[in-house]
Amino acid sequence: MVTRLSRLFLRTLREDPADAEFASHKLLVRAGYIRRQGPGLFAWLPLGLKVKAKVEAIVREEMEAAGAQEVHFPALLPAEPYRATGRWVEYGDDIFTLQDRKGDDYLLAPTHEEVFTLLVKDLYSSYKDLPLTIYQIQDKYRDEPRPRAGLLRGREFTMKDAYSFDIDDAGLDASYELQRAAYERVFARLGLDFVIVSAHAGAMGGSRSEEFLHPTPVGDDTFVRSPGGYAANVEAFRTLAPAPRDASGLPAALVFDSPGTPTIATLVALLNERHPREDGRAWTAADTLKNIVLALTHVDGRRELVVVGIPGDRDADLKRAEATFFPAEVEAATEEDFARNAALVKGYIGPWSVSGPVLGEASASRIRYLVDPRVVDGTSWVTGANQPEKHVLSLVAGRDFTPDGTAEVAEVRAGDPAPDGSGPVELARGTEIGHVFALGRKFADALGLKVLDPNGKLVTVTMGSYGIGVTRDLALVAEANADEKGLVWPRSIAPFDVHVVATGKDDAVFEEAERIGRELELRVADVLLDDRRASPGVKFADAELLGVPSIVVVGRGLADGVVELRDRASGEIENVPLDRIVDRVAALLEP
Amino acid sequence: MVTRLSRLFLRTLREDPADAEFASHKLLVRAGYIRRQGPGLFAWLPLGLKVKAKVEAIVREEMEAAGAQEVHFPALLPAEPYRATGRWVEYGDDIFTLQDRKGDDYLLAPTHEEVFTLLVKDLYSSYKDLPLTIYQIQDKYRDEPRPRAGLLRGREFTMKDAYSFDIDDAGLDASYELQRAAYERVFARLGLDFVIVSAHAGAMGGSRSEEFLHPTPVGDDTFVRSPGGYAANVEAFRTLAPAPRDASGLPAALVFDSPGTPTIATLVALLNERHPREDGRAWTAADTLKNIVLALTHVDGRRELVVVGIPGDRDADLKRAEATFFPAEVEAATEEDFARNAALVKGYIGPWSVSGPVLGEASASRIRYLVDPRVVDGTSWVTGANQPEKHVLSLVAGRDFTPDGTAEVAEVRAGDPAPDGSGPVELARGTEIGHVFALGRKFADALGLKVLDPNGKLVTVTMGSYGIGVTRDLALVAEANADEKGLVWPRSIAPFDVHVVATGKDDAVFEEAERIGRELELRVADVLLDDRRASPGVKFADAELLGVPSIVVVGRGLADGVVELRDRASGEIENVPLDRIVDRVAALLEP
Repeated sequence: MVTRLSRLFLRTLREDPADAEFASHKLLVRAGYIRRQGPGLFAWLPLGLKVKAKVEAIVREEMEAAGAQEVHFPALLPAEPYRATGRWVEYGDDIFTLQDRKGDDYLLAPTHEEVFTLLVKDLYSSYKDLPLTIYQIQDKYRDEPRPRAGLLRGREFTMKDAYSFDIDDAGLDASYELQRAAYERVFARLGLDFVIVSAHAGAMGGSRSEEFLHPTPVGDDTFVRSPGGYAANVEAFRTLAPAPRDASGLPAALVFDSPGTPTIATLVALLNERHPREDGRAWTAADTLKNIVLALTHVDGRRELVVVGIPGDRDADLKRAEATFFPAEVEAATEEDFARNAALVKGYIGPWSVSGPVLGEASASRIRYLVDPRVVDGTSWVTGANQPEKHVLSLVAGRDFTPDGTAEVAEVRAGDPAPDGSGPVELARGTEIGHVFALGRKFADALGLKVLDPNGKLVTVTMGSYGIGVTRDLALVAEANADEKGLVWPRSIAPFDVHVVATGKDDAVFEEAERIGRELELRVADVLLDDRRASPGVKFADAELLGVPSIVVVGRGLADGVVELRDRASGEIENVPLDRIVDRVAALLEP
Repeated sequence: MVTRLSRLFLRTLREDPADAEFASHKLLVRAGYIRRQGPGLFAWLPLGLKVKAKVEAIVREEMEAAGAQEVHFPALLPAEPYRATGRWVEYGDDIFTLQDRKGDDYLLAPTHEEVFTLLVKDLYSSYKDLPLTIYQIQDKYRDEPRPRAGLLRGREFTMKDAYSFDIDDAGLDASYELQRAAYERVFARLGLDFVIVSAHAGAMGGSRSEEFLHPTPVGDDTFVRSPGGYAANVEAFRTLAPAPRDASGLPAALVFDSPGTPTIATLVALLNERHPREDGRAWTAADTLKNIVLALTHVDGRRELVVVGIPGDRDADLKRAEATFFPAEVEAATEEDFARNAALVKGYIGPWSVSGPVLGEASASRIRYLVDPRVVDGTSWVTGANQPEKHVLSLVAGRDFTPDGTAEVAEVRAGDPAPDGSGPVELARGTEIGHVFALGRKFADALGLKVLDPNGKLVTVTMGSYGIGVTRDLALVAEANADEKGLVWPRSIAPFDVHVVATGKDDAVFEEAERIGRELELRVADVLLDDRRASPGVKFADAELLGVPSIVVVGRGLADGVVELRDRASGEIENVPLDRIVDRVAALLEP
């Protein structure tokens, strides 16, 4: 049935919504696809719902093709399973929680690992039942602190989440690859560019994790890639550690006065002035060891100070620190932290002092001391001497101090070597459009999901979890294809295939437009017919704003037996004889 | 693609779930359609999800045919619009409420009148935009106090809710009729018997309201119907008031001693013993006026006592009282209420005493006094005299006491006359499967939805609201069609059209079953193939439990070129030649 614009529940708007920053947000609201209901909450209007249904259909087809079976869980779930895995606490303010009339705790689930695990435990008991991949397309919730990016960061959003269950690691690998390949097909069909990057597993734990990132300057994730094909988000980037060096022959540690050196730059200047290197090379920030004091808040509430030594030419990256210390929360140490720890002489912190080790679990302070992976044994540093206005030269790792371990806290820079030897990385911005996790046995262990193996022995099941942000990805498709006039949908998810516009006031034109619309609808296409008695200017502007890929304009040319076929994306206009227009459009729609 | 039982995520269970009372609940769980996740919370497994999708498709088709357009709102909504209409308070414990990280109030919406009203206000402004009917199929929430009936009374459930917007009453009538007719088609396609009954508007207010009730002995609603076609739920039933009578000639009120008459029965016995009627007719309970003291809690928190006089042969019906006094909450008066009101002499309450009126807004007590509609002027009653152990005879309404109004608090009984004169009613039980409301201007007034009329004048829009319980109705279809062996789906929403069962151990049988399945799938049908290497007993029991309408058994008969076609509902078995089975099944599926 042809959809008539005169009856469609739609009002296009000329003004951008007040709070919108992103093109997708502005245009989806202005074109009448969605409408705000609260912070991060949107109603889907008829056009938006049609596009959403098409995205879901693509996801569903590719899931079925990959052998995944569809189920559907409640959004509202009891707290217990999430308590059992610790996520009830870990999520903190990021989730919506509530109590029912009896006072029992519930949450609006942001993801469903726990209950999928319990469902399989509930129904299955043998290796013969596996492998199994089940999925749902479902509305999820997150109490985003800054829900200002339209559908890109909603508080209620639609996800496809799939979970795989296997008896062993080889099975998990196979299930993971099936989902990963399905994701590649989904994003190709959506016309959404993507890079697959290694990801930090975060809340999920597990052995292998990759993000599908859509490269876009407005993305909120930073990722790196090398010419040789390495790609990772910055949280997952692993620093290439150099080989340990021979420390014999290096001069002994030497404490020196360093008044007026509150920054690395002033310290370097003082070094070059008062302690020039014998070989004539100038001191640089990279020769210094900067000691960052972090305060971790562990899940059990315990607060721990930890010091991380990183090369002085790099800043700390808090996101990388958070990934490193997950699930603890990370912040910079406060004045109060310093006041309470005499071992920390602010501005002159270092692992060593003339009277012995100052930092480290084996030291008197018992403060954990970790270092950047570049701080290998035999490297020599200038760093604080733990006395006011004193630093130390030629402090050698492995000789003068022994760290408790390494930590990825330093920022990643363009030019850093990829850990797999595939060359120097570049940095780019992107937005996550999908995520695949080899969870391993974390959830199955916590919730007791075991099955009998072929020998009759109980073994813990290994799992994967796989998410696609349906509504976010829809917004990214809109964002990637928009122009200054409005939305430009790819054919795969356009709300209609063809937008037929009748112009002028001549009834014959409207009748002909109607006839073309009906014939197209019968033959091949989902048709939107602009049958409003409005000016051509209004109608063309709306057609460009709505973004249907092909626009057929029926107007003056009718006298010459011709209609216009416009391509929304390229703007190209083609005059097509009336008796050829249906075939012409049909040809465009052929796969 | 043929669905193979060997790979389907399904485990049928032999035991009923512990807490299940209803056949639909037991069977949907045992047959692996749904699985409990918490009180009133269910996960949909693959078979259940398929049936649910079919129900939704039927609803969607009939909505589109009725000109309604689909939209989709969040389940999580800010409290403000619900505060504006008063429903935030009225719902009380019946809804789930929560706060976000900023402490703002939200609810999980049980119904969406407010936000649909605001959306139309937001986008539309002229009579030219109307009529408009928009709907959604969406998951809703209610914090049911006793969520023990499976999908019949869930806390998360799927509803179709539609809302109509019109410029005038005639428009509302037309929109209402379109939805009402669509509902008749939906329930016919689901194979669900229904009675349309007048309903009390309750929380919705408004002018006209009808419930679609599915008659079933396990229903939690009682309704009445007359031979002449009247039908109403008991809350909406209106008592037929007799004509007022001439009170002249009736004896004067007479106070008499009534020791030891704590009940109506003992009072009637005492009357017949000590005060026999002159005309010889025995006194009955119907001659007495029983005064029920109710405590109302109004929405603003105010507590009010009200007394309702009803014929002594009837009990009070609290549900009818609640509908009468809505939105106030109703309970029986407590001992404390009596203690605080000297005017209420427990066991001997009446509107009158020798010293003047005791009850009524004009009396000293100022306690409202309402009566059953049968208590018309000129009727004579025996009732309490407001003194311990004293009653009064020949107390005449309109002569000795004047009530403040009437109230529908007395129970309805089989044989009561229908208010439209269509004869005596009978009582039956049913469950609500749909509801249509002519809301009128209540929500538009509260939220300021006005549009310009043809004269350029702002007028308030008039609305309707129309609900179908998708998941509840699915359960009722299951309930209505089940037998002792399992589910029996109507073809319109069966998860599969045909269930092909391969029996025995002969590979040739499995191959032939597979071929038949593939051919059926290509030709006409959605096919479930039982390709498990299990005993025929297990397979037949599962086929009967799952309830697919047609079962094709491929087994021993194959040697004779024959397969069995079983009808799940009737149990009939037909031997069909192998080369005819596809055509035979195709014929069954023709509409």
